[in-house]
Amino acid sequence: MFFAMNRFQVRLGHEEEFEEVWKSRDSRLKDVPGFVEFNLLRGPSNDTYTLFASHTLWASRADFEAWTKSQAFRDAHRSAGEHRHMYLDGPHFEGFDSVHHIK
Amino acid sequence: MFFAMNRFQVRLGHEEEFEEVWKSRDSRLKDVPGFVEFNLLRGPSNDTYTLFASHTLWASRADFEAWTKSQAFRDAHRSAGEHRHMYLDGPHFEGFDSVHHIK
Repeated sequence: MFFAMNRFQVRLGHEEEFEEVWKSRDSRLKDVPGFVEFNLLRGPSNDTYTLFASHTLWASRADFEAWTKSQAFRDAHRSAGEHRHMYLDGPHFEGFDSVHHIK
Repeated sequence: MFFAMNRFQVRLGHEEEFEEVWKSRDSRLKDVPGFVEFNLLRGPSNDTYTLFASHTLWASRADFEAWTKSQAFRDAHRSAGEHRHMYLDGPHFEGFDSVHHIK
């Protein structure tokens, strides 16, 4: 399993707007080979921002990388530039391999 | 759903030792009310460390908080101090609520 995360520092007061962008996006992830699950995660706030993380689980790193080169990826990110005013910092991408699993 | 993450900067060369600590720990998480799933995640390396994240999914934040006050939690973390030489920095805890889910 491969975990693809992006961390965003969202300006205070823009949290609901940020969430709405993700909820209204037609990502078509469900149709992408190797896609397992997606969560938009809202984390702690401090004096200047609220931490968010997008969190996507893939069957393999290769599946994730194939998606980043696809038309579906380009379509899903086409309007990303319109949302920059909401971020203080990010997105910062981090990819992780699961090395131990309990379920 | 509540995601509890801890991020660790593990010194280069200590990655396998760090993974072994987690694999050999008898966490008894499976028996804890509200526990859903655990993954130890190995992320990118730079010149000084490899990023790891422990990643536990709970039915609710209240379930997670109840676990942190339990004997099972104290038992699972009893020997944490023995492993400090492996870390450059961390653990840094971050708790997240899922605000959007695709599966």
